[in-house]
Amino acid sequence: MRGVFDRLFSPHAIAVIGASQDLSSISGQPLASLKEHGYTGRIYPVNPRYQEIAGLKCYPSVAALPETPDLAMFLIKATSVPGALRECGERCIPFALIISSGFSEIGSEGAKLQLEIIEIAQQYAIRVVGPNCQGMMNVAKGMFAGFGAAFQIPKLRAGPVSLVTQSGGFGFAVVSMAEESGVGFRHVVCTGNEAGISTLEFMRFFIDDPETRIIAAYVEGLKDAHCLLEVGDMALMAAKPIMIWKVGNSEVGQRAAISHTANLGGAAALYRAAFRQRGILEVDDVQDLADFNRAFLYGREPRGLGVGIVTLSGGAGVVMADACTKLGLDIPSLSMDSERRLREIVPAFGSVFNPVDITGSIFNDPEMLRKVLLTIIEERNVHSLVVITALVQGRLAVQLASEIIKLNRITDKPIMLCWSAREELAKDAYALVDAERIPRYPTPVRVSRSLAALTTFMEARRKCSMRNGARITSVKRPKAHKMFMGGSGVLTEHRAKQVLAQYGIPVTRERIALSREEAGSISVEMGFPVALKVSSPDIPHKTEARALRMGLNSAEEVESAYDEIIVNARSFKIDARIEGVLVQEMVKGGIETIAGITNDSMFGPALMFGLGGIFAEVLDEVTFRVCPVTFEEAMEMIHETKGYAVLAGARGTARSDIDALADTLVKLSALAMDLTDHLAELDINPLIVLAEGEGVKAVDALVRPVHKQ
Amino acid sequence: MRGVFDRLFSPHAIAVIGASQDLSSISGQPLASLKEHGYTGRIYPVNPRYQEIAGLKCYPSVAALPETPDLAMFLIKATSVPGALRECGERCIPFALIISSGFSEIGSEGAKLQLEIIEIAQQYAIRVVGPNCQGMMNVAKGMFAGFGAAFQIPKLRAGPVSLVTQSGGFGFAVVSMAEESGVGFRHVVCTGNEAGISTLEFMRFFIDDPETRIIAAYVEGLKDAHCLLEVGDMALMAAKPIMIWKVGNSEVGQRAAISHTANLGGAAALYRAAFRQRGILEVDDVQDLADFNRAFLYGREPRGLGVGIVTLSGGAGVVMADACTKLGLDIPSLSMDSERRLREIVPAFGSVFNPVDITGSIFNDPEMLRKVLLTIIEERNVHSLVVITALVQGRLAVQLASEIIKLNRITDKPIMLCWSAREELAKDAYALVDAERIPRYPTPVRVSRSLAALTTFMEARRKCSMRNGARITSVKRPKAHKMFMGGSGVLTEHRAKQVLAQYGIPVTRERIALSREEAGSISVEMGFPVALKVSSPDIPHKTEARALRMGLNSAEEVESAYDEIIVNARSFKIDARIEGVLVQEMVKGGIETIAGITNDSMFGPALMFGLGGIFAEVLDEVTFRVCPVTFEEAMEMIHETKGYAVLAGARGTARSDIDALADTLVKLSALAMDLTDHLAELDINPLIVLAEGEGVKAVDALVRPVHKQ
Repeated sequence: MRGVFDRLFSPHAIAVIGASQDLSSISGQPLASLKEHGYTGRIYPVNPRYQEIAGLKCYPSVAALPETPDLAMFLIKATSVPGALRECGERCIPFALIISSGFSEIGSEGAKLQLEIIEIAQQYAIRVVGPNCQGMMNVAKGMFAGFGAAFQIPKLRAGPVSLVTQSGGFGFAVVSMAEESGVGFRHVVCTGNEAGISTLEFMRFFIDDPETRIIAAYVEGLKDAHCLLEVGDMALMAAKPIMIWKVGNSEVGQRAAISHTANLGGAAALYRAAFRQRGILEVDDVQDLADFNRAFLYGREPRGLGVGIVTLSGGAGVVMADACTKLGLDIPSLSMDSERRLREIVPAFGSVFNPVDITGSIFNDPEMLRKVLLTIIEERNVHSLVVITALVQGRLAVQLASEIIKLNRITDKPIMLCWSAREELAKDAYALVDAERIPRYPTPVRVSRSLAALTTFMEARRKCSMRNGARITSVKRPKAHKMFMGGSGVLTEHRAKQVLAQYGIPVTRERIALSREEAGSISVEMGFPVALKVSSPDIPHKTEARALRMGLNSAEEVESAYDEIIVNARSFKIDARIEGVLVQEMVKGGIETIAGITNDSMFGPALMFGLGGIFAEVLDEVTFRVCPVTFEEAMEMIHETKGYAVLAGARGTARSDIDALADTLVKLSALAMDLTDHLAELDINPLIVLAEGEGVKAVDALVRPVHKQ
Repeated sequence: MRGVFDRLFSPHAIAVIGASQDLSSISGQPLASLKEHGYTGRIYPVNPRYQEIAGLKCYPSVAALPETPDLAMFLIKATSVPGALRECGERCIPFALIISSGFSEIGSEGAKLQLEIIEIAQQYAIRVVGPNCQGMMNVAKGMFAGFGAAFQIPKLRAGPVSLVTQSGGFGFAVVSMAEESGVGFRHVVCTGNEAGISTLEFMRFFIDDPETRIIAAYVEGLKDAHCLLEVGDMALMAAKPIMIWKVGNSEVGQRAAISHTANLGGAAALYRAAFRQRGILEVDDVQDLADFNRAFLYGREPRGLGVGIVTLSGGAGVVMADACTKLGLDIPSLSMDSERRLREIVPAFGSVFNPVDITGSIFNDPEMLRKVLLTIIEERNVHSLVVITALVQGRLAVQLASEIIKLNRITDKPIMLCWSAREELAKDAYALVDAERIPRYPTPVRVSRSLAALTTFMEARRKCSMRNGARITSVKRPKAHKMFMGGSGVLTEHRAKQVLAQYGIPVTRERIALSREEAGSISVEMGFPVALKVSSPDIPHKTEARALRMGLNSAEEVESAYDEIIVNARSFKIDARIEGVLVQEMVKGGIETIAGITNDSMFGPALMFGLGGIFAEVLDEVTFRVCPVTFEEAMEMIHETKGYAVLAGARGTARSDIDALADTLVKLSALAMDLTDHLAELDINPLIVLAEGEGVKAVDALVRPVHKQ
């Protein structure tokens, strides 16, 4: 199978437009790097000022090239790019790597130029990388097409990690540092302003690339974020972990990121939600990248959260237990049987409980380790094993390493080592365990973080296969679509609830009354108490307009309330379109929650949930998921809020109908997917959750349609 | 000035009791280490089995030694320790370092042995280190009295960091790893089971030690935790930061810690509170230790939270802004004037806002950096400066380093560098900035963490001097002490409130009625509505006993409620001592909060605060401070809970009397200090906070006296 970007990453020939004879300058470096790293394709410098650069024949124009290269690199000033890009189009060059700066990052003038190159690229079907980017690498092939210090590192280690970065300076600094920590790279590409190929497109390609095993990305913002869930699923199915360094999460950070307009809280929360939904690992320092890399390349997949810990140092065992617990891993108790067996092996001043502390007496009895390991590895609740060998060095280290390797060969549970001896003092032992591909780290915290990363990915893969078993059925409700036609501004509450009802979401019983008498008779039919609310697309905030009355207990009360509401509504907004007065049942009891949809400009529809009423303000805690949302995910949303305590029956109150709530969230997600083109925002506030078995009810709803241009 | 442990850390002679001729065994290693590291004092092996060990004359007993050593090391089996310790006592040896295991960490048998050595130590005034410990070091003096790999590291770097650790294996692994990362140690000591000298005693000594500049500790639990605030204050006044690696914070971790060194954990929340109160830095990996060390040794003290950032890589600037914000640092906007000046210097595709992105064009114009730095360093709101030089290497690196050094000499604001070039590629530049003592780190996250550590310490020092300006006046209330006399079990609500009132805490108006008629007349006097509650030390939970009635509106209601309460109380507990029925005003409005005291077995009294009612359950959030608590700290407590939103007036309700609440918390702290010997626990629930200017009122209170033995 050939990947879409194979010719980009493995070009048989590259044109270097604007190459300089000064090989230390920005426009000279790429030529030097390509030659130094042994790129075996043909290199064509293009520059009318020279006959030859660094021993290569230099061509006056792209038109003059003896063949059509797969890739053209642009090192010329921004204003010259459109012309040269057109020339490339005429020569049918499929890929352009535009290093040049001076595009949308400098403001409107540059943005215009960027639009121009997008148009030219479309016209000639050229795929563009950049502009304003630092270059790209295919490490194994010596294809180092870029400038800066990272392109000059001799013998950069090749490996199975492919990285896409929106920042050149920082991205390649990460490459340099991670490589120094042992990470081997396959492809690295800087996307710059992303006028052409996006970060997610590169990620897709890496997922399909058989030689990439791990995908890393530095991300400021994804304009095609709505594809993130799908890309995440592809990666899960291909068993390739994605690690994202997402930045611009703070206000200042976001301002600093060359970026978009989305509101801060929302956007950062949606990224976090999507990462979580697909087991995408967030990293925020180079060490994590390097550590996780080792775990994934060496490690086996744990089948659960249970960690068995065997330590030579009690203190390190305590640190490990703390760190694992903090990261959501489990340190299960051992069976009585195992404890009994361990008691015969472990000295009295050690511990036979997990973490098992075999103490420094290992110095006197190295056999002890084998017996302890064999006992623990058989425990049903132990899904992975951490062995802490502290500072053990020299001959004893080799002996322990051999025991661990023997165990590794008779189990398929992952084993990880916390070994703090200096490299030179345990060289032989380290060589043994490295050859066996048993991941080792010097500190307990680093072991537990890496183990947690493996577990997160494993969990996401498990959920992915469950999702694939039970595909979300897509819902089509043409009637609901029609409700958005012809109107302007927000939908009235009544209309909004009719939309909800189309998707099976329970709403209050209610009818529009057009006269005081009708209001009275509807209320009698409905049964008391009732609420009255003005129905007008021009008055979304009914309380403010004093056009709402609650708890009315007789037809008389209803009739006089009707008049009052009409008068107040008129005086609030003289030209308001009044469609009547809504007579509505009052919902008794239950817990107030808020559920909603935001149709994010980058992510598309996302589901929001939180407690309502006073809790909404005090907790200031809502949770998001990018749609579509499964029942299991809806349940997770409910469980992860503090509101869960209230719904589950805090202070002795009855348990609420949590199943019905989750079901409603799923329906809301289906609604959002069906109405993507119409819906800007939807809020159900409150969504009352009644006692178990009694369902939920949407009491008020606000729908804001997309603003048609 | 001579420190209390000078003779321990710099002994003129050491007796090594139980030294072995096998220098690779645990009891042989210390002798070898002392000799190898060039310890210049005299070494006296004591072992009746040998005439000589490693060229040193071996003595049959302590009695036979030619002089009295300052320190005796114990390498003999646990059961032989008491006898040998007595011999040391007879020779007036002041310090004993007991390496031997087999004491309280193995259970009751060993605990008995440990008690025995404590008694002997007291009898002879010997100060004991250990038992069950791995040893100690005075690095500069070559005094390496212990066993294990760390004691065998050749030329361990000496420096100004002193470390006390409760775990030997882990503590010395940290020493080994931190030293490898550049940390230099002065004293290192393992306290093991702490039968004698405690962790905090060693910390005090280090604070007084002129050559220690930074104090580090690995802590499982502090049995003298009540001294932590005081030790923290000493360190703040001496301007020596304390970094604590506190473990046993999870349930499993705590269980493991107990079986490890038998040090009781104590509440994790109280440790965290005390650390925060005194600016003690919590670390949880070796890298932080090494990074913070560099910041404190090199760095200057920032005078505020404002960070100015200058970067060559836009991406790294975003990462830095995110990381600083997350850690509570501030990235202030620059003045209009500076922005204008920067606009003339920085290229269009960079940024003139903080973080200032001068981009890779530095390659073409290295002068740019100086101008930018000079502009930013003068900003009033910039208290520290971070320069991100990305991967810059070679000659340009030296040039930038010189510019930064020039700036460093004309400002007293701290400057920190984020410099990711490999050591070998920017060697000369690194040598320059290192010589100038400008801290540098390879990644933005590590810079910001180190800067935040400096800032935390600076803030704590500022608050410390404020505290010293306004000392907490201690309150003595002998009347309150008397209220605890003679009783058993909990105090009645009425009695508990009389205790509160003694310290000026407002309580509900209330009186005990002894008859239905009296209840009626009290209620009339008091004004309706009132509440009635049984008053009995045997019925702390009045609701459960149905011995409580609220909202009574007439004398008749009160009288019949009186009878009902007496009947219910009797039938709930037939032999309950009933002191009457409390007639109490009903407090209208206000916000329910909970305030309390826990008299922790290790910390002594600690203050607790949180929202009450349903919020208590949903938020599950209370905050602690170890007493005494200042007004400023009380305000911090209120602000850091989510309840603050409610008290400040969420949903348009009136703002509550937060000043009065803080004042009450301070009074509660004074009460707790005065009643330390009597009070086990005190809860005010609810403590109603009324509208601004109207104060607070304790509506119900529970006091549990210490259980007298």
